[in-house]
Amino acid sequence: MTDIKNNWRRLDSREVYRNPWVRVREDQVIRPDGNPGIYGVVEFKMGLGIVALDEADHVWLLGQYRYPVDAISWEIINGTVEPGETALESAQRELSEEAGLAATEWTDLGRFHPSAGITNEVAQLYLARGLSQHAADPEATEEFVPRRVPFSEALAMIDRGEILDSYSIVALLKVDRLRRGR
Amino acid sequence: MTDIKNNWRRLDSREVYRNPWVRVREDQVIRPDGNPGIYGVVEFKMGLGIVALDEADHVWLLGQYRYPVDAISWEIINGTVEPGETALESAQRELSEEAGLAATEWTDLGRFHPSAGITNEVAQLYLARGLSQHAADPEATEEFVPRRVPFSEALAMIDRGEILDSYSIVALLKVDRLRRGR
Repeated sequence: MTDIKNNWRRLDSREVYRNPWVRVREDQVIRPDGNPGIYGVVEFKMGLGIVALDEADHVWLLGQYRYPVDAISWEIINGTVEPGETALESAQRELSEEAGLAATEWTDLGRFHPSAGITNEVAQLYLARGLSQHAADPEATEEFVPRRVPFSEALAMIDRGEILDSYSIVALLKVDRLRRGR
Repeated sequence: MTDIKNNWRRLDSREVYRNPWVRVREDQVIRPDGNPGIYGVVEFKMGLGIVALDEADHVWLLGQYRYPVDAISWEIINGTVEPGETALESAQRELSEEAGLAATEWTDLGRFHPSAGITNEVAQLYLARGLSQHAADPEATEEFVPRRVPFSEALAMIDRGEILDSYSIVALLKVDRLRRGR
């Protein structure tokens, strides 16, 4: 593979915004072309996406209004890795909290960078199988509407543009490839 | 489909950071549970990703160091929609600028939201075929290293975790589905 190097140099860095979920910093840099410039970087916690697939070949989706994009979004179970937890522990917690489910089989679907030009966000994806419901079916709340759909219907929702969230598309299409034997 | 509403209310909004590529605002909101809170939203231009597939079934990748994630990244041709351009015009411009290519066939692969919990980013994806080189092969620069790989190898790079960029994974796996007849 061709050799590619980091030709950016960071001279200085200052925090320009912070809230409990996100931190924005502006770095003073020397760009690869040798000229000085700035780079604004948005920092997040590590993200998680979980394809919860049951014995009837149905997958769990949660519908919610996503404020930043001003749209209703159907998504796989997702969340963030909290301090003191491994990614897998966080995934088990989110599966329990958001869908009332536990899983006996976890398959690592790898990581990806949702928006590598601006954010440092890294998303870790899992396939969870061997599901059991340890709580009542999750009720629709003011934030989430749960929905169980056949796996093939989740793929059709991607094809029809009804699933637009990157975590959901990447994870479901990776599971599709795994199931086809790639 | 279950009815989901926007139960967030925006009371106020202020800009907390801006540079030429990104704007960050903090909104004062009433959350769906009725409690007051804030929402920090990162605003971008619309993004673009282009799978450039030639007659020999090879796809163009560009290797670059991505500063925010501090990693070498292999990506399809990408860019942003600039003011005064349609998404397709921007895609044609980026294909020309980044790979020295023109295309006669453009297939709309749909949109997605790379990071819908924090950013308003919308990415538009295309498949470009009927390629012709209108400039010399692009040279490796300090920023980009171009590489032409068989389509099957691009998929294998996703499977092996060597392509981590959301635009590239979503677009290439969507093209894979199209080629399999879904």
